[in-house]
Amino acid sequence: MFDRICIFGVGLIGGSIACAVRNFGLSREIIGVDSSRSNLRVALDRGVVDAGMESIHQIDGPVDLVVLATPVGSLGDLFEQLKPIWSPSTLYTDTGSTKENIIQAARAVFSELPPNFVPGHPIAGGEKSGAAAASTNLFHNKRVILTPVVETDEGATKQIENFWHKLGAKVSRMEPHYHDRIFAATSHLPHVIAFSLVDMLGQKNEKDEILKYAAGGFRDFTRLASSDPRMWLDICIANRNKIMPLVEEFKQELTLINQMLEAQNSKELFETFQSAKNARQKFLDQFDIE
Amino acid sequence: MFDRICIFGVGLIGGSIACAVRNFGLSREIIGVDSSRSNLRVALDRGVVDAGMESIHQIDGPVDLVVLATPVGSLGDLFEQLKPIWSPSTLYTDTGSTKENIIQAARAVFSELPPNFVPGHPIAGGEKSGAAAASTNLFHNKRVILTPVVETDEGATKQIENFWHKLGAKVSRMEPHYHDRIFAATSHLPHVIAFSLVDMLGQKNEKDEILKYAAGGFRDFTRLASSDPRMWLDICIANRNKIMPLVEEFKQELTLINQMLEAQNSKELFETFQSAKNARQKFLDQFDIE
Repeated sequence: MFDRICIFGVGLIGGSIACAVRNFGLSREIIGVDSSRSNLRVALDRGVVDAGMESIHQIDGPVDLVVLATPVGSLGDLFEQLKPIWSPSTLYTDTGSTKENIIQAARAVFSELPPNFVPGHPIAGGEKSGAAAASTNLFHNKRVILTPVVETDEGATKQIENFWHKLGAKVSRMEPHYHDRIFAATSHLPHVIAFSLVDMLGQKNEKDEILKYAAGGFRDFTRLASSDPRMWLDICIANRNKIMPLVEEFKQELTLINQMLEAQNSKELFETFQSAKNARQKFLDQFDIE
Repeated sequence: MFDRICIFGVGLIGGSIACAVRNFGLSREIIGVDSSRSNLRVALDRGVVDAGMESIHQIDGPVDLVVLATPVGSLGDLFEQLKPIWSPSTLYTDTGSTKENIIQAARAVFSELPPNFVPGHPIAGGEKSGAAAASTNLFHNKRVILTPVVETDEGATKQIENFWHKLGAKVSRMEPHYHDRIFAATSHLPHVIAFSLVDMLGQKNEKDEILKYAAGGFRDFTRLASSDPRMWLDICIANRNKIMPLVEEFKQELTLINQMLEAQNSKELFETFQSAKNARQKFLDQFDIE
C-alpha cells in the first residue's frame, strides 16, 4: 500500500500503528521519529520500526504517509518543523485525543489547514505506555474518529479511512467541536476524576490502610489514574474549555448526592443508583455486541 | 466442622458462602433464608443450599452458625426477629459492608452486643448479584475484616476467624469506627462517584453518542455503577456520616483541578496526575503480591 511510512512518537499508539502496519504488510519501510533515545532503542530492538531517528531533519527522501502520534501539546511545534518540508504528495494524519486544538495549531502554522492533513483519533489506549507496550492488535475492532474540516481533501480522508480499516478499526467521521465535547464527557472527565480521587486518597494519613484494603472494584475504578500523566496533562489543557464545565456539573451532581444522604432520601438515592446501573447496562449491551 | 449452618440472604455473598461451605465440607446441612422466593428457587436449583425458607419461623432445631448476609439496612429488623430465638450455643456473624450501624442496631435490640455475635465484612463482591452469581471461589485469597467489640467473646471471634480461613480468606481485625472510615474512602466514595457520573452522563442529550464512543477505560471505570442499587443505598445511608465529608473533600479536589485548568497550571496538574499514578502503582504492587 505504501512505500514509506513515518511515525512521529513511537509510544503505545504510534508503536502499535507501526506493529500493525508491519503485520498487515502495509508499508515497505517504517521510520520512527522520537525525541526519547531510550524509547527509540526499545522500538528498534523490538523490531517495531525499521529505522529510528531523533530528529525530523534526519529523514531523507519521500514519505507516503506521516502519522503524528506525539502528545497533543506538541503538535504546534511539530507543524512548525514540518512546514518547510511539507509535501503535497504525502498523506498526513494524527492520533490526538483532542481535535479542535490540533486543527487550530495547524491553522496557526499554515494559515489554512493543508488539504492532505486528516485529523484523526483512534479510541484505543491503556495504562501502559511507550514502545515497549506497542502491540499489533491494539486497534482491532476499535473505533477511529476522523474529523476532516472544510479544507480537507476528500480523497485524503478516504485514504486515511482505508488505512485504518486495514488495521482492523471501525472508522467514523465527526465534527471536531462535537468530537471534543463527546470525549470530554466519556474520556477526559473520567480521567480527571480518577486522577483526582487517587491523588486525594494517596495523601491521607491512613493511605496505607486505604490501599491495603482496596479491592478489585477499586483497581478497575482507578485504572485510568495509571495513564501517562504527560499525555493527559496535554489533553486536559487542550480541551479545558469543554472539561471545566463538566467538572462543575459533576460537582453539582455530588452536591445533590450529599443532600440526599443528609436527608436520608432513600427514594431519590435509589433512583440515582438504579438509573446509573441502567445507563451502564445500555452501554455494555452495545459494547459487547460490537 | 458444623452440623447446621443457616444463611440469611442467599445473594452473591450469602450464596457464595454456602457454595464454599459445601465445597470445603464445613457443614452437614446448609439452610438458606431469603425473602425472595425466586432467589430461593435459584439457590435450591443450583444446589447452593439444602433447604430454603422464606421466614425465620420455619427453622426447626438447633443451628451451629448463623450468617447474616442481607442488605445492611435490614439488620435491625433481623435482630428483632432473631431475639426471641437467640441461642447462646449458636455462633452469629454478619457480612455487612458497614460495621458501626450494624453494631448499633444490635445494641438497640439486645441492650448490649451478644458475646456470640462477631461482626464481619468479607471484601469481595462484583457487579452481578443474587444466588445465580454465587460461586465457590469468591473469597479465595480475599480479605475479611472482623470488628469484634468489648462485649464480643474472644472464643467466638476465633471460631469465625477460623471459619473464614477455611473458606480461603485472609482475616484481619479492626475497630468498627476505623473500618467504616477506611471503607468510606476505598469503597463507598468510589461507588458514589461511579453511580453519580454514569447517572449524569446518562441524562445528557448526547448520551447515545457518549456511550457509543466510550471505550474499555470507561467500562472499567464505571463497573462499580453496575453494583446492586439496593445494597448500595443501604451502605451509603448507613455510613453517610463518613461518606459525606469525603464527598465534600473530593469536590474541593475537583475545584483545585478546575483552577489549575483555568490557569493552565501545567506544573501542578502534572504533579497531581503523577502522584495519582504513583499512589496507584503502590496499590498495584501490593495487590499483585498477595
